[in-house]
Parts: sequence; structure tokens; C-alpha cells
Amino acid sequence: MEKKSIALACRMDSERALDLTKRIHDFLIKKKNEIVYLETRIAPKILPHSGRDLSEMTSENTKFIVSIGGDGTLLRVSSGLSQSEPPPILGVNIGSIGFLDESNERNVFKDINKILSGDFTIEKCSKITAYIVKNKSEEIKLGNALNEILIVSSKNSKVLQISVKVNGAFLNRSYLDGIIISTATGSTAYNLSAGGAIVKPSLDIMQLTPLNPFARSGLKPLVLPTNSEIEIQLLRPRLNAKILIDGQRIIKEVQPNTKIRIRKANAYAKFIRISLSDNYFRRLRKKIIGTIRVPLDDSPEEY
Amino acid sequence: MEKKSIALACRMDSERALDLTKRIHDFLIKKKNEIVYLETRIAPKILPHSGRDLSEMTSENTKFIVSIGGDGTLLRVSSGLSQSEPPPILGVNIGSIGFLDESNERNVFKDINKILSGDFTIEKCSKITAYIVKNKSEEIKLGNALNEILIVSSKNSKVLQISVKVNGAFLNRSYLDGIIISTATGSTAYNLSAGGAIVKPSLDIMQLTPLNPFARSGLKPLVLPTNSEIEIQLLRPRLNAKILIDGQRIIKEVQPNTKIRIRKANAYAKFIRISLSDNYFRRLRKKIIGTIRVPLDDSPEEY
Amino acid sequence: MEKKSIALACRMDSERALDLTKRIHDFLIKKKNEIVYLETRIAPKILPHSGRDLSEMTSENTKFIVSIGGDGTLLRVSSGLSQSEPPPILGVNIGSIGFLDESNERNVFKDINKILSGDFTIEKCSKITAYIVKNKSEEIKLGNALNEILIVSSKNSKVLQISVKVNGAFLNRSYLDGIIISTATGSTAYNLSAGGAIVKPSLDIMQLTPLNPFARSGLKPLVLPTNSEIEIQLLRPRLNAKILIDGQRIIKEVQPNTKIRIRKANAYAKFIRISLSDNYFRRLRKKIIGTIRVPLDDSPEEY
Amino acid sequence: MEKKSIALACRMDSERALDLTKRIHDFLIKKKNEIVYLETRIAPKILPHSGRDLSEMTSENTKFIVSIGGDGTLLRVSSGLSQSEPPPILGVNIGSIGFLDESNERNVFKDINKILSGDFTIEKCSKITAYIVKNKSEEIKLGNALNEILIVSSKNSKVLQISVKVNGAFLNRSYLDGIIISTATGSTAYNLSAGGAIVKPSLDIMQLTPLNPFARSGLKPLVLPTNSEIEIQLLRPRLNAKILIDGQRIIKEVQPNTKIRIRKANAYAKFIRISLSDNYFRRLRKKIIGTIRVPLDDSPEEY
Repeated sequence: MEKKSIALACRMDSERALDLTKRIHDFLIKKKNEIVYLETRIAPKILPHSGRDLSEMTSENTKFIVSIGGDGTLLRVSSGLSQSEPPPILGVNIGSIGFLDESNERNVFKDINKILSGDFTIEKCSKITAYIVKNKSEEIKLGNALNEILIVSSKNSKVLQISVKVNGAFLNRSYLDGIIISTATGSTAYNLSAGGAIVKPSLDIMQLTPLNPFARSGLKPLVLPTNSEIEIQLLRPRLNAKILIDGQRIIKEVQPNTKIRIRKANAYAKFIRISLSDNYFRRLRKKIIGTIRVPLDDSPEEY
Repeated sequence: MEKKSIALACRMDSERALDLTKRIHDFLIKKKNEIVYLETRIAPKILPHSGRDLSEMTSENTKFIVSIGGDGTLLRVSSGLSQSEPPPILGVNIGSIGFLDESNERNVFKDINKILSGDFTIEKCSKITAYIVKNKSEEIKLGNALNEILIVSSKNSKVLQISVKVNGAFLNRSYLDGIIISTATGSTAYNLSAGGAIVKPSLDIMQLTPLNPFARSGLKPLVLPTNSEIEIQLLRPRLNAKILIDGQRIIKEVQPNTKIRIRKANAYAKFIRISLSDNYFRRLRKKIIGTIRVPLDDSPEEY
Repeated sequence: MEKKSIALACRMDSERALDLTKRIHDFLIKKKNEIVYLETRIAPKILPHSGRDLSEMTSENTKFIVSIGGDGTLLRVSSGLSQSEPPPILGVNIGSIGFLDESNERNVFKDINKILSGDFTIEKCSKITAYIVKNKSEEIKLGNALNEILIVSSKNSKVLQISVKVNGAFLNRSYLDGIIISTATGSTAYNLSAGGAIVKPSLDIMQLTPLNPFARSGLKPLVLPTNSEIEIQLLRPRLNAKILIDGQRIIKEVQPNTKIRIRKANAYAKFIRISLSDNYFRRLRKKIIGTIRVPLDDSPEEY
Repeated sequence: MEKKSIALACRMDSERALDLTKRIHDFLIKKKNEIVYLETRIAPKILPHSGRDLSEMTSENTKFIVSIGGDGTLLRVSSGLSQSEPPPILGVNIGSIGFLDESNERNVFKDINKILSGDFTIEKCSKITAYIVKNKSEEIKLGNALNEILIVSSKNSKVLQISVKVNGAFLNRSYLDGIIISTATGSTAYNLSAGGAIVKPSLDIMQLTPLNPFARSGLKPLVLPTNSEIEIQLLRPRLNAKILIDGQRIIKEVQPNTKIRIRKANAYAKFIRISLSDNYFRRLRKKIIGTIRVPLDDSPEEY
């Protein structure tokens, strides 16, 4: 059996990310016992011939992969890895928020040492898949999403008209800019900006959140079990839609009357978490929701 | 073993509810094989000596109980029955919305016949419990909620300041009117009006939704697994809170600095559903969210 | 002085709109005393040689113009007419909502007779203008908006980072999909879907409404006097924006660091209103917000 | 003519407020030329016999009044002064937010010197009044509000059913906890927490904002000219409402079927503003909405 390696992936358009990647690479190489791969496209910039395609990395051949960048990098890496047997990912944030990332520039070397000592846990996150319905018996698979599937009007200011079914039952017809179907992992991303609820990633759910619906449309954020099937039909003549998977892969020119189905994928992501206790709620406060900072003893006036 | 009976409960302040209850009572009595009980407080108005306390009704001695009224009646009935072994409830709506109710004045006789033929399913819904923390080792149980626990300022226009912990981890400090911890069943009730997400009742979750928070507070609707423990601490000196359980039982004069904990209860409700297929999404559209009614062929103008 | 004429404009892509336009044309021609013009592009389809460009129509030469279509048609017509001295517009809705339209297929002939008898009022609505700041002393005017100026990321799922100033004072920096600056007239359009308030069109205001802002951004719908100057600066490197005026005219490829200013325009629209009393609140209920339909005597249960 | 005096008012339940009031009192007394009054209820604690009732203070006899506390104190002071000819108020914040306050503990002495040198401007803010309709020709005036009139269910968890008319026209019927009619000044207070828009105080408007409405009710925040008349009718049998004026004066046990009307008051508040330029937008950012703090050069990743 092949000895398991450590892999590195990073944002390409950031000198800071590339530089940190080099330093992590050197740090690992010095450990002597570790085999290190670089994702193919960055190998020429750091160490040629040490490249390996993300798609060839599995939990069989890779201890873990370090993703250096922000949430966008992490989504790209997760999307490129083996889908059903992915290696775990250590996210290292160098961006502005990086909610999914566990580590950062300051802690990454210490965190890698902890991982190599076995001092970590794995957070396993479900993905969802979108399909375009061709006819009654045929579906075209569009790809897996770790955060969300977004179906959105191809023209700003021209609202879609859609019909929503869940498990075959008609739920609602709406005018709206688009619709988000997010995972629990993606609930703090676009879903939250659109008014959806935050969902702890350990819950196996899908959330359907309308994007800027017309006032009387009625559709509200709806949390469903992941064994549900959501079907969105585009109704408006002469108005195409786009489908975005994790904000990265785009399917353009989706025609009126098309039906799109979303179901749980046979795919997931595994994130490395270092903290002994669950630091989800701390990350949520620090990176997403914040808190008030007022005196604790502020009492209401009595008259 | 005691032969299982059928029980009837209803709204007391509505002639229409009492009248329908009498008609259902007569309908059941005529079936000869059925033993019928009335909840104690309505027995004198329909058939004295046939009364039985809700608290004595269990799945052991009661086939099912018919709750005639609206969601409020159903919440009261569920709260009165045996908590860990309750009989299933058939909700009969005579009110204005009655989302939880499966039946109505028109269908109830037909629906009861279906149930007696075994033509129904059971929807089992988890409850949650609130506790007041007395000291490190002591908690006072406040009661089980099927819909929600509401912690709210005892004075309109005097906002609470609260601290929220989940599983012992500090999440957020906020100014707000109050906070709702709802079950999936209660997600379409007060939680929805306050901006929380709708959650399919088959999901075993709790949702934490702030009530009219101050803009910078940051707290957002948050969906958590039911094995979570939520702790709310009241911070504002000289401002008491009230705790409402399912909008019915009220704990007044909860003092500043009190900690309230919410956890999954060892209790549940069982609702009878008649439809062969899941009619949850139909009820959601018809009773809660609605839909637009515009021409299907409405196309955007081209210039 | 030229005798004032009546003008007709309509949606081009709808047979139903063209057909109604023909019938209104015939109806007016039969009146003998009326001179009727068709907007240039529809003249060939109805009566060649009777065409006139919208831009040549002013309150001096045109009694009123009938706009047959929906709100989109009406926005296009208003944008094409003389900006500072426009003739009044009678909107005739054949679309799905047509909030701004006063009339419809059923009432239009009766309504035109009322107008010709002087039985109407004029609602005068302010417009706003967007400018791109070239340097300290130079601005490029982008055009007048009756509903709204929308500044939006050129890529779905890539949020803008913007800085907002009002009257030269720094207000807020946000991550968001975009920002809407709407007039009172446009407050029921995209502004409402994005969470902005409805504003009665008689109020001379601008409303700034963020589009799907990141949770901690803080920006909220803000209503300002129309003598305010709003300045939006695009901050995010390598991410362009688009500017949409009334959802119709698009300025693409607006570069990072660009400043866009919005001020009241020296331009307005005039809408014909037939009803003696103000029917604004009726239109608001019927076309935009709706109402509940439950029994008036629904009382809360007493326990 | 009486020489104009300076008056001091403060929160009674705060030692810190009383202490600061004493220091301001001493500071003013030392100026020799100034006559200083204390609001009646605090005089015994600072200098007996120098008390004067708020209701006797007018712009005729009082240069300005210093309000030491937070927004609540300022609302109380404004409510106690002469309504049609009030002296201007300098708000001094010692509380947690104090949005309306211009000054604070650190700046108050410097700011008072500026005012005495004439170095200030006056912000004049309109009030609104609520009336209970007794019969067709009779109304009972309830009092003037600087921030808002709140009509709210007398029971938590029992929603009101109300009918809303504006200028005599039926707008909407809703289920909700209550309804807020706020001024522009009050738009950043309870109105904002309930989802209403922020309105610059120089705008002469009223905003109608529903409090936790049932999903299908449809009512949305609505900004109206202050010459509008809003009429709210309580519809639900057996459910009383409370009316709160600026969160301070409470009218209890308002019966079902009561009609409440809100109109512009013949009353206003005058706030002293020290800054030469308008510091409204700075106060808005610092005290209410906040801003993100992320790197300005954060660019989206390119793939």
C-alpha cells in the first residue's frame, strides 16, 4: 500500500497565499518522514514534478490536504478532490473572513504539528447535487455543492417565475431573483445574506431560501431533511436562468420550462478541526454574527 | 387489559366547538363498539359521568383523542396528556388557521371512519423543556413545549440584555424584546413571525430566534440539533422577564441574572395524519405561506 | 400654437398589447376632434406616417400619452419622453401586476372619456440621476431613473465591497450583492423585494437599500431627503459592477475604485389618476401587499 | 422680560447621572451670569429651592435644558416640557447607546461653553399624537410621541387582529403582535428592530411598521407624509391592547373594536447639535448600524 502523503493547494492569484504555501511546503519537507504533493497548477511555482491532480487525491493516498486561501479556495479544493472518499482538508485563512477555515497564517505550523500527533477531529459535511430533468426518465447531473446551488435569473432586474415542488408535492409559485438551496455548511454563506437561518453543520439538511422574492410570493426559508427532493421549474417565457454551484461552476442559458432537481449527493467534505471542544459557536460569533459590546450593568430607567 | 377508548377535548369558550363536540360524541356512541370519554371540564355540558382527566389518557388506554378547536386547543391538549406515552391526537380546526390540525368540520366524520379502519399514519413530534438554574447542581423544570419556549421582557419597550450559550460555549450577547426557542413543529408559529425559518417537523431540531433584536446585536435564527443545550442568561439589572411555554403557561417575575436552560424533553406529541401522501407542503401553502396567482405565461418585456 | 395631440405607446412583443393599442387608436380617431400619434416604432404596425418619437413629446404638444403594457412599458415610455416637460401618462395594464398603471383593458375606454372631460388628477413623481465621477471636477451623467438606480456585482456570487457616503460624510462599508437607490415611486418595486420600506410617492425622498448584505455589514434601508447626495465607491480589486437604471438601461464594466453619485434629477414623470379619491392605498393592497382573509370575529381561546 | 435660565434634568436611578448633574450645576453656577434651575424632582438632592417643573420651561424662559442620562431620559424630558414652545435640549449620554444625545461625560463642559458662545445649531423634530375615537365626533387625546406610538397586544402570544386605514382608505387587515407608528426621529429606535427603515430626522414623515406579523398578513413598513391620518381598529373579540407612547406612558385595557387615530402633533422637540457639519451619519454608524472592518484590498479569487 502506498504511503499516505500530505497535499497542498492554494489561491493562485495571491502572492501571500503562494508564499505561505512555500513556507508550509518547506516546513513539511524538513520533517523528512512526510511525502508532500502540490496541486498540479501550483507545482511549477514551488517544486516542479511534485504536482498531483486534486481529482487523484483520496483518503486512501492522502493524510490530509492543506487549503491556503479563503472559503472560495476551500470550496474549489473540495470540489476537485475525490467526491466519495476525499481526504480531510485543513483550511488556512489568509482572506477576509474564511468561516470554514480552521487555521490561519499565525497558527498553521502549530496546527499541522497537532494533526501529525493525531490531535484533531474530523467534521464530515454532506453535499447536494443538482440535476436538469431532460424527460421523465432522464436527468443530467450538474455537479456537487458543498455550500449551495443557486438558480438565478440571467438578467438583473428581470425576475424569474418559478414553481417549487418538494417530494413531488406542489409548494409555491413565486416571482424572485432566484432561489438558493444550501447545505448546513453553506447556511452561513449566501443563504444567510438572503435571509435564511444558520444551521449547525452536523445537521443533515437542505435549506430552500428565496432570493429577493416579490412581496406576495409567500416563499420563506424552509429547512428540509436531506432525503427530500426539491424540484424547481422555470416558468417565465423568454427568460433564461443560470445555475451556480458553490458560486464557482456556472451553467448558463437554462431555458424556460426546464425543471431542476436537487437531492443529497453521494459525496462529502471532511474538515479538520483542531480544538478539543467544538469551536463552531466561537467562529460563528467572531466571523459571522458578532455581538454587542455595551456595559453589562446597563439597567432600564425607572420613572 | 382495559379496552381502549376514544376521547374528546374542545375549546370551552366557543359554542361552535361545543356543538361539534356533541355531534362527534353522538356519532361515536352510535358505533356501539366504542367507549367514549370527554375531557373532565366539558363532560358536564355533554354527558356527565363520562369525564376523564387529560393527564390520565395514555397510549395504553386511549386509541386517540379528538381535539376540537384550533392550534391553541391542540397545544393545550398535548400539554395535558401523558407526556411520555401520549395517545395520538386528531386535530379538528374550527378556528381561523389551525395549521397543526389535520381535519375540519366538514371532513371530521369521514376522517374518524378512516382512522377506525386503520387508514392513517402517525406524525411523532419532539418537545423541548425549559429549566431555571438554581445553582450549579440544581435545576427547576418549567414544563414541556410542543411549539416554543418564549423568554420575553416583562415590560413592553424595555429590552432585555441576554447572553446566549450553546453547549457551554458563549455565542452572543444581545439587546432584544425576547428570544424564542422553537421546535420544528413550532417553526411555523411565532418563530416564523419573528423571522425564523420553517422546518419540516420530521427534523429533530431546536431553533433559536431573536425577537426584535437591536440592529447591531448580530443574533440570527439558528437551527441546532436537539441534543444541544441552550442557556440564556438575563443580564439587565432591574428588568424581569417572563417565560411562556406554548403561549399558554406563564412563569412571571424571572429575575435578572437568572439562567434558563432549554433541552430536548423526554416527551412528545403524536398527530394523526389521514392523507396517504404527505400533505405537509399543501398545508404549508394553504394555511401559512400562500402563493402568487398570476398568469403562467407572463414574460418579461424585450426592448 | 400647435393643437395638442394624444399619443399611444405599447409593448412590442405582445400581440395583446398591440391589439388593444389598435382599438384605442380607432376609438380616439372616431372622436374626430383628436389628433393621435403613435410612438415611432409601432406606427408601421398600426398606421404608417402617424409616428412620432417619444423624445419629441412634451406637455406643450401632447395632452397625454397612453402606455399599454405593464410597469416596464411605463418606465420605458417615461424614460423616452421629454424629461423636464413630459406629457402626463395614462398607464394601461395588460401584464401581471402593473402597480403604476391606473387603468386596464376593461376600463381604458371609459377612463379616456373621463380624461377628455377633465375628470382626472396628475401625480407628479421625481426622478433621480446617477453620475460616474471622473475626477474632482468632472462627472459623467448616466441617465434619469423613475424607479431606481441599481449598482450590482457583475458576477453572481462575488460580492462587492462598497463604501457609502451621504453628503460627503462616511456612513458605512459593506459586503453585498449590490445597492439600490430608489425613488418613492420605485419603493414598491425592487426596493421592496430587497427589504426596503414602501414610501408614498408624494414624498420627495431617496431610499438606499442594500441587496443581500453580509450579516455584519450593518447597512439598513435608509430614507433620505432628495436634496441629499449619495456616493458609492466600489472597493474590491478586480471585481467590476454594473449599473442598471430602471432595470432597463445597463452600464457595464464599471471598474473598481469608481465613485458613483446619485442626486435628484431635474426630471419627473406625471401619471394620470382617474379616481376622485386617492386610490394609492387600494392599489397597494390589491397589487402589492395583500391582506389576510380570516373571520373578523376570531377570538383567542381562554383557558 | 425674565432673564433666560439654563435647566438641568437627569435620570433619578443612577448615581453617575446625579453626580454628573451636580458637576454641571457647579460648573454653571461658577459662570456667575447664568441662572440655573433643576427639574423639580432632583432639586432636593442638589440644591433645594432651585427646582422648577419641566412643564413650566419654555423657549421664552429657558435658554436650553441639559438632559443627563440616555435616550429614555431625553424622551421623558421632551415629554414634560412645553409642547409647542419647548426650549432646546442638550442630551448628555451616560447610558449604553444614547443615539439622540449630542454630548457625553467627556465633552459636556466643552460643549456647554460652545453653546454659550452661540456655536451650535438646532434640530427641530416633529411629534405625533394618538387619539382614541369615542364616537363620530369625539376623540380623546392620549399624548404626544417624539419616537413612536406602539399599539400592542395585552397578552404575549395572543396576536391582535387589526384593520389599518390611511386617510380613510382601507389598507390592510393583519394578525400581529402590534403596530408601531414612528416619527423620523424614532426610526432608529423600536421601528428599526421591528424591520422598519431608518429615516433622516429632517424628513417630515410617519412610518407604520408591523410588529411580528403573521406571514400572510402582507403589511410592510410604510412611510407616509405627516399630514396623513392613520387609523388602527382593534378587531379581535376578548383581546385588549395597550398603547405605549415613547415607551413610557402606557394606556392599558384598550378594548376590542376601539379605533385609534394617529396624526401629526402641534408639538415638537428641539435638539442642540454642536458639530458644524451634520454628524447624523457618523452617529448612525457609531451607535446604530456599525460597519465591516476587513481589508480594503480583499479581492475575489480568480479560477
